Amino acid sequence: MARPDGRRPDQLRPVTLTRGWSSHPEGSVLVEFGATRVLCTASVTEGVPRWRKGSGLGWVTAEYAMLPRATNTRSDRESVRGKIGGRTHEISRLIGRSLRACVDLKALGENSVVLDCDVLQADGGTRTAAITGAYVALHDAVTWLAERKSLAGKVDKVMHRSVAAVSVGIIDGEPRLDLCYEEDVAAEVDMNVVCTGTGDFVEVQGTGEAGIFSRAQLDALLDLGVLGCLELADAQRKALQ
Amino acid sequence: MARPDGRRPDQLRPVTLTRGWSSHPEGSVLVEFGATRVLCTASVTEGVPRWRKGSGLGWVTAEYAMLPRATNTRSDRESVRGKIGGRTHEISRLIGRSLRACVDLKALGENSVVLDCDVLQADGGTRTAAITGAYVALHDAVTWLAERKSLAGKVDKVMHRSVAAVSVGIIDGEPRLDLCYEEDVAAEVDMNVVCTGTGDFVEVQGTGEAGIFSRAQLDALLDLGVLGCLELADAQRKALQ
Amino acid sequence: MARPDGRRPDQLRPVTLTRGWSSHPEGSVLVEFGATRVLCTASVTEGVPRWRKGSGLGWVTAEYAMLPRATNTRSDRESVRGKIGGRTHEISRLIGRSLRACVDLKALGENSVVLDCDVLQADGGTRTAAITGAYVALHDAVTWLAERKSLAGKVDKVMHRSVAAVSVGIIDGEPRLDLCYEEDVAAEVDMNVVCTGTGDFVEVQGTGEAGIFSRAQLDALLDLGVLGCLELADAQRKALQ
Amino acid sequence: MARPDGRRPDQLRPVTLTRGWSSHPEGSVLVEFGATRVLCTASVTEGVPRWRKGSGLGWVTAEYAMLPRATNTRSDRESVRGKIGGRTHEISRLIGRSLRACVDLKALGENSVVLDCDVLQADGGTRTAAITGAYVALHDAVTWLAERKSLAGKVDKVMHRSVAAVSVGIIDGEPRLDLCYEEDVAAEVDMNVVCTGTGDFVEVQGTGEAGIFSRAQLDALLDLGVLGCLELADAQRKALQ
Amino acid sequence: MARPDGRRPDQLRPVTLTRGWSSHPEGSVLVEFGATRVLCTASVTEGVPRWRKGSGLGWVTAEYAMLPRATNTRSDRESVRGKIGGRTHEISRLIGRSLRACVDLKALGENSVVLDCDVLQADGGTRTAAITGAYVALHDAVTWLAERKSLAGKVDKVMHRSVAAVSVGIIDGEPRLDLCYEEDVAAEVDMNVVCTGTGDFVEVQGTGEAGIFSRAQLDALLDLGVLGCLELADAQRKALQ
Amino acid sequence: MARPDGRRPDQLRPVTLTRGWSSHPEGSVLVEFGATRVLCTASVTEGVPRWRKGSGLGWVTAEYAMLPRATNTRSDRESVRGKIGGRTHEISRLIGRSLRACVDLKALGENSVVLDCDVLQADGGTRTAAITGAYVALHDAVTWLAERKSLAGKVDKVMHRSVAAVSVGIIDGEPRLDLCYEEDVAAEVDMNVVCTGTGDFVEVQGTGEAGIFSRAQLDALLDLGVLGCLELADAQRKALQ
Repeated sequence: MARPDGRRPDQLRPVTLTRGWSSHPEGSVLVEFGATRVLCTASVTEGVPRWRKGSGLGWVTAEYAMLPRATNTRSDRESVRGKIGGRTHEISRLIGRSLRACVDLKALGENSVVLDCDVLQADGGTRTAAITGAYVALHDAVTWLAERKSLAGKVDKVMHRSVAAVSVGIIDGEPRLDLCYEEDVAAEVDMNVVCTGTGDFVEVQGTGEAGIFSRAQLDALLDLGVLGCLELADAQRKALQ
Repeated sequence: MARPDGRRPDQLRPVTLTRGWSSHPEGSVLVEFGATRVLCTASVTEGVPRWRKGSGLGWVTAEYAMLPRATNTRSDRESVRGKIGGRTHEISRLIGRSLRACVDLKALGENSVVLDCDVLQADGGTRTAAITGAYVALHDAVTWLAERKSLAGKVDKVMHRSVAAVSVGIIDGEPRLDLCYEEDVAAEVDMNVVCTGTGDFVEVQGTGEAGIFSRAQLDALLDLGVLGCLELADAQRKALQ
Repeated sequence: MARPDGRRPDQLRPVTLTRGWSSHPEGSVLVEFGATRVLCTASVTEGVPRWRKGSGLGWVTAEYAMLPRATNTRSDRESVRGKIGGRTHEISRLIGRSLRACVDLKALGENSVVLDCDVLQADGGTRTAAITGAYVALHDAVTWLAERKSLAGKVDKVMHRSVAAVSVGIIDGEPRLDLCYEEDVAAEVDMNVVCTGTGDFVEVQGTGEAGIFSRAQLDALLDLGVLGCLELADAQRKALQ
Repeated sequence: MARPDGRRPDQLRPVTLTRGWSSHPEGSVLVEFGATRVLCTASVTEGVPRWRKGSGLGWVTAEYAMLPRATNTRSDRESVRGKIGGRTHEISRLIGRSLRACVDLKALGENSVVLDCDVLQADGGTRTAAITGAYVALHDAVTWLAERKSLAGKVDKVMHRSVAAVSVGIIDGEPRLDLCYEEDVAAEVDMNVVCTGTGDFVEVQGTGEAGIFSRAQLDALLDLGVLGCLELADAQRKALQ
Repeated sequence: MARPDGRRPDQLRPVTLTRGWSSHPEGSVLVEFGATRVLCTASVTEGVPRWRKGSGLGWVTAEYAMLPRATNTRSDRESVRGKIGGRTHEISRLIGRSLRACVDLKALGENSVVLDCDVLQADGGTRTAAITGAYVALHDAVTWLAERKSLAGKVDKVMHRSVAAVSVGIIDGEPRLDLCYEEDVAAEVDMNVVCTGTGDFVEVQGTGEAGIFSRAQLDALLDLGVLGCLELADAQRKALQ
Repeated sequence: MARPDGRRPDQLRPVTLTRGWSSHPEGSVLVEFGATRVLCTASVTEGVPRWRKGSGLGWVTAEYAMLPRATNTRSDRESVRGKIGGRTHEISRLIGRSLRACVDLKALGENSVVLDCDVLQADGGTRTAAITGAYVALHDAVTWLAERKSLAGKVDKVMHRSVAAVSVGIIDGEPRLDLCYEEDVAAEVDMNVVCTGTGDFVEVQGTGEAGIFSRAQLDALLDLGVLGCLELADAQRKALQ
């Protein structure tokens, strides 16, 4: 199976990061990986949750969701069903952990940031696009705090690393970067790689539901994932200039 | 208090209706009334809910929701709270009733359409923008059904009326059309008017929480509302060409 | 279709307002509009919700519900289903708004009143009966507060307007006042009118789900609604003597 | 502590059973034990739950609830809280078991009856009043089924026993029948006795939360409970004539 | 029907009380009544719920639950269904009341103990085994508090009574002690007896869903229940040495 | 920081797999990794969920939960809170995916197996212990199906791979196998490795919340994880003999 959009195996889809897409939030980015489109907003509140008060540390958390018709078939709203599904929970937690890894919570001071990542249109890789976009939105929110003299440290101290993420997978035995939905479904192995701007790992999640994978395959996927993340880090840097 | 954006009292905000904003749904429209931005998608499923099977009638329903940071302050997600709030319920029901009023359910045949209206950015008038946009999305979905020869009647028979909606209110004694958020909060009386393309009423909801209103004020608001709806009907017609 | 109970089009059903129907609440009224029977209780608590503390303003809110067999067919309890339905939400909010419109919250002082409107038997017009009865229950609760010297102002200052409500509708082209269930189901247009004792509007909600309505029809319904509300205001005055 | 209303220790409060209190249900009884007031309705549906289909047996179940201001202090609605409390669950189950004990489910045929017991005003003994009233409502519903020729057996065969219930307790060492709220709170031991019309036991529940009780005390309470139930059975017989 | 395990009618199943079965809780007991196996843990927290603060009294509460496959057929988890069932609620409340009856809450001081009773394997009598085991776990937790000098009184003062429970029932007309599941299902009458170590009653619950029972049968069951509880009290004493 | 129990860095805790720990389920295993103790039961039902009917394929799913006092501090029950937490969801999904990877669903035929993994006592590595134990319970359940001639294929065909899992982490720069709770909390990097009995990967999840990790560290952890899984596969083989 060739790549549906004719990309090379190690090629990302066109990536755009539109800052300030909405006007209310302290940071807001519409991130697109090809047809995947996620609105990432960063909402600042002074103070931290009760269990953290007086610690001098800030807090960063994330919530991921999909519009009901972001996908090819309509899904029921989780608000209507009255509960959050397992997949949503899992991805929200992954985004939160990944973003906290790039923030110095002490330098943030006792401020809280909620990162809302709402998928407006899905074509594979929504969680990795969300992490990549949320980093930029968070950076804007931290800058906003700095302008109000509300940070304990400087912006560069708070955002001491950048973080980006990409999906990789093996289709017909071929390792590929940044899978679209059609490839995601066909993948024998599927992995999400979260890296810093210097290519260190923050999180690695590989799954072989339809099958198993060898160390050699795993190594190839990690190589590809790091490559993709470095390219995304570049796009983030440009977007933030 | 002058209008924040310098409009005349009987002037709508700039209205845009972007068809095909997302690629998966059978109909999808990004509707903008000034800074208010609502994504309306129409999702078709063959067949109707169990209680309607064998009736020969179709079904149209709507769900309204807001992204957590569509507003100036972040609201908790209804999915996280585990229940739908009263305001959401109320608006979803209003949109559903309004759209059903413009559809011949017999000509639709045993097909169901769900209209999802998700507010991406709010600046007053989200429910009326949603109705106005959902009409266009529904029209596209019905055309899609017609192309698949799945309608019981023709498109024009199914969509036998157009429907649009606008908010009107009295601020400092002055009746105004299409209130933005700042005006909505300041209004003594607030009314939503839903009309057909020929200026008949589908739904009228007037509230004077902060005060009461006379028949004369009500009449002035109705006049203004019909005027606004006719202009919106025009915009819908142009968008559908 | 003639009126099932032989009334003139502009005639209310027999209305009774039984004060003190139950002994625990600070105010309690069994209101009957024909066979529609709603128990309205007013429960006072000192203080206001957290978000209102220190404002010097009181708070009035309402909850509407139906016993499972108030209607012809049994409905599942919302407590058993684990969630409040949209209709219930919508009506609770309408009652709350309507009653707040008749209260001077500053003169009430930092006291809260919850108005519970439980439909014991339904035959159309339950929400309008609820508003009409709740006003009387609220008046008794405010008097109770006055007797305990717990009001910031006088009873007449707090209850500076009376409020009542009635349904009107068009059946077979004829505008009718105070629809019973059978008429409600058959109505082409259905409107709820909430008025003060002097005939000003507090809330107007007209719906034409099965069809649309003209300005002339709307005008006829408003006339009829005001007429009915004035008669109900009279009944409230008598009940409170 | 003397009895608040001057009754003898073995004396019931005035008991009234008003049949046909509401017009929609197949059986409906307003039962009053002094100031305790419970509306019991019996709702018939043809057929039985899925797990019972084809068994030839009917089904009887019960739901108990309190209006929020049935008591001296307002309680939050269970529908608003989104869940049924333990006490409500416990009482609903007790009523259901008690009523099933008086019904021949085979003679009932594949019909279902739901007994809704809604406390309009509470002054102790609501669950026992509910059982006593629900029996009469159920009897009316079964007669209704007989009139429609929908029973597998005759009314007397279906309702082969009567069932009634009363609370008993020990206050200041004295066994008392049919406790009002004030006594209930003060009781060292509290027992609910459910009996057939011939004085056999259907259910016995004795609790000594504040203390413990001896066999002699238990015996005295059982004697008193049977006595009260026989008197209530008499009242039921009279009501059904 | 003979007893499935050949016991005499007045014979308990083999009872074991394994203290310290798990290492984290302040008290933990694996209680076995034949094949019925319940893990009872006592968790101490300093302080009491808000509504009890400053009273000088402690608080003891209980939660009962079953693992999904503790029984012959798998039940859905209550966490997955999103609500606690009526039976679970009822039993949790029974355990809490029973244990509070054996504790001097003043001598406990402002400490809270939660008793978690999780059924790992069920073969009848799970609630009575839970009460019997929870008493021992609670005793250990109170001793733990004493060692930390956190009690208001002495251990013997706090635990001023012991409490144990057993089920009894009538099968084929024969009163039997400590029913296993097979007997429980076949019982005409089923009773749970909760007694102190001196044979006084704490709680008595008898049900005749499949039938009714006479005073003579009730007396026989009570005799048997007290006998069983005294034997269990003996086992508790030995376990605590 | 030395290992709390004096193990070598590449040494597992004592592992025991007790088959048939409970008597009702078709497969049941108490798995212990040191003080971590998880009860894994496999429940068989004939047939598959509706969406899978007629596919000829079976279904395997898993649910993970913790007793409230399995940990050092008591957690509220998810049934009481009315919803499943994100961590629980995430782990249940991981166990399900891992077990499905070892099963030939076609050879299983249209049968369903639910794997319930309930943590009775937690000391780190509960999810990996659960996967390791669930494999053995599933094997027993499949054998049970074979004995009833209910499988589409043979046991060896259905269970065509074994699967086991272990946690690895870096503490003070040292890669360690099978972390206990104390080490888990202190780890800079934490990884769960799920492998087949031949050392292929099924799932790899590495997280560096407190920090980041290099490719070299990742490689060391993967080596250690595979080693541990092979040893666990050996223990599974022995347990199944």
